Amino acid sequence: MLDSIEMSRPEAEALLRIGVVGRVALCTEDGPHVVPVNYSVVDDQILLRTTSYSALGRLARGNLVAFEVDHLDLEQHHGWSVVVRGRAEVVSDPAELDHIEAVWPPRPWAGGNRPLVIRIPWSEVTGRTLGRGWDPQAQAAYRRTLAT
Amino acid sequence: MLDSIEMSRPEAEALLRIGVVGRVALCTEDGPHVVPVNYSVVDDQILLRTTSYSALGRLARGNLVAFEVDHLDLEQHHGWSVVVRGRAEVVSDPAELDHIEAVWPPRPWAGGNRPLVIRIPWSEVTGRTLGRGWDPQAQAAYRRTLAT
Repeated sequence: MLDSIEMSRPEAEALLRIGVVGRVALCTEDGPHVVPVNYSVVDDQILLRTTSYSALGRLARGNLVAFEVDHLDLEQHHGWSVVVRGRAEVVSDPAELDHIEAVWPPRPWAGGNRPLVIRIPWSEVTGRTLGRGWDPQAQAAYRRTLAT
Repeated sequence: MLDSIEMSRPEAEALLRIGVVGRVALCTEDGPHVVPVNYSVVDDQILLRTTSYSALGRLARGNLVAFEVDHLDLEQHHGWSVVVRGRAEVVSDPAELDHIEAVWPPRPWAGGNRPLVIRIPWSEVTGRTLGRGWDPQAQAAYRRTLAT
């Protein structure tokens, strides 16, 4: 386990809003699964786009999930990690889908039709800096610049 | 969800053996949790070092966990991800601890006494390349070089 210092909720939320790629963990009868995803943030929720037959489409909807973003600097031996926990839901309301499309639609790196929009409202947000002291947001801003 | 192509088991294992930092997902009564960790690999198992009072020390031992490593290139919009699933166990046998120490002891970035060694034998290993085609191992070798 990495040495960690808890960050404030505003700091954790700022890092979530700057991120591009995260990992969804979900529990099934045969234990936990982890799926890497592109994501976006609209209001206080994580948004993902997938297909109904994917692991995420089949297993996440309606269930408690954990969503993690991090940046780990292997050279400097430090980093940060933010985890959101909440119940994943399919977004089906047309007005809400329009709002998401207008603000910041999730854009998977993959092509193909991915009609299912899943939201993870963040009922719980925790963040930690890992390793020696540094400025997590300076590094995170670089990530967003690269990805857009 | 990222577009993904399944990799062979030898390719997935090679990437695990080259990695430095991963994420452990575990299931609790209040849903899944994710914890970033330094790790090492000895034989066919992931090894972590932690304290008995950490989330990992309290929740992972004896339980099914998923362990994920990835490399996601934000600029190129591609990457890879490998997931191991298995039952986490505390290593307490002195001969086995000596063997781990001799081969490749897990080295947390954090200081402090972390006496608990946890292993995740990989009963299931799956790997995927994400986004457009490229060579996962070329990138991974760079990670190991940086970290040692």
